[in-house]
Amino acid sequence: MTRNGSVETPSPRPRIHQTHPQDTPPFHSTVSQRKLRRFNHFIFVFRLAAFCFSLSAAVFMLVNKSGSHPRWYDFSAFRFVVAANGIVALYSLFEMVASAWEIARGSTLFPEIFQVWFDFGHDQVFAYLLLSAGSAGAELARQLRGINATCNAFCVQSDIAVALGFAGFLFLMISSLLSGFRVVCFMINGSRFHV
Amino acid sequence: MTRNGSVETPSPRPRIHQTHPQDTPPFHSTVSQRKLRRFNHFIFVFRLAAFCFSLSAAVFMLVNKSGSHPRWYDFSAFRFVVAANGIVALYSLFEMVASAWEIARGSTLFPEIFQVWFDFGHDQVFAYLLLSAGSAGAELARQLRGINATCNAFCVQSDIAVALGFAGFLFLMISSLLSGFRVVCFMINGSRFHV
Repeated sequence: MTRNGSVETPSPRPRIHQTHPQDTPPFHSTVSQRKLRRFNHFIFVFRLAAFCFSLSAAVFMLVNKSGSHPRWYDFSAFRFVVAANGIVALYSLFEMVASAWEIARGSTLFPEIFQVWFDFGHDQVFAYLLLSAGSAGAELARQLRGINATCNAFCVQSDIAVALGFAGFLFLMISSLLSGFRVVCFMINGSRFHV
Repeated sequence: MTRNGSVETPSPRPRIHQTHPQDTPPFHSTVSQRKLRRFNHFIFVFRLAAFCFSLSAAVFMLVNKSGSHPRWYDFSAFRFVVAANGIVALYSLFEMVASAWEIARGSTLFPEIFQVWFDFGHDQVFAYLLLSAGSAGAELARQLRGINATCNAFCVQSDIAVALGFAGFLFLMISSLLSGFRVVCFMINGSRFHV
């Protein structure tokens, strides 16, 4: 319609479309593109924060040792904490790449429909996973302190690792809200552009 | 449509609007209203399931006693399980009323913008709350079994209560996805009608 319109009739709609760069679809306004850019920057920042916190949580738990006490891998809840935070750190790293790609190139890494559902689904699942690991780890740390009152450095470091995991969960939860918004935009408008 | 159209105006747009009942806004098609009705029935069913499971989880934990062992309220994680499941049961009951009201009257209990945000916010928070309580309770039940191998009826009943809580979480999570969809519909279209 736009192509034929610009060739033949001088109606106002084709002129609006011609303000866009050639590589973008003709039905997204520049306002919408600027908003999407800002949205992607937001997402990138939250991914970065989730990556930093979950990586440091996993590392803090991994290096947690004490002379005579059992190690972290003797407790299944702490293994869960390390695994969940490690998975989330890897996933956040990948999503940072995908987000940077989208900011730089203006298109998604995977096809758009797959990308929005992939992001949202994994955000949801991993946010619940991280919260579950954090709660189990916190409860185990409380129990350990109750059983062994002399458990100092080991318990404090476990607490810190669990707390870092909760911070990572917070940022992942916000990311999942943002990517959920993108999914519904896609379902309603047929594109991730929400304006 | 045929009645008014045949009496008054021959233009197509007014005839479409006159097909609606008098109490609904004129810009929602009957297809959209039927879809919203089905959507509300879905939500009602999930609310009902979340209510049943979380109530039974709280009750199972409340009646959990054993002769010589400590009671459930001696463990903070089990108190957390009871509190979280009780809160979710009350909230689900309220949301069932709100949902039934919407199905019966065709309008939300609170003003629409408040209702969609209220539902979504509480669904999210309570889903995370319930998962956190379930994980902490499951970890404590594991620890108790490790400490005291003769903990039979008490531990089994704790496990059942925690499992019921997880089932309640599942339904609440699905409700939160549905109400999240409604929020984004409201943000984009200015109404909870999504078609």
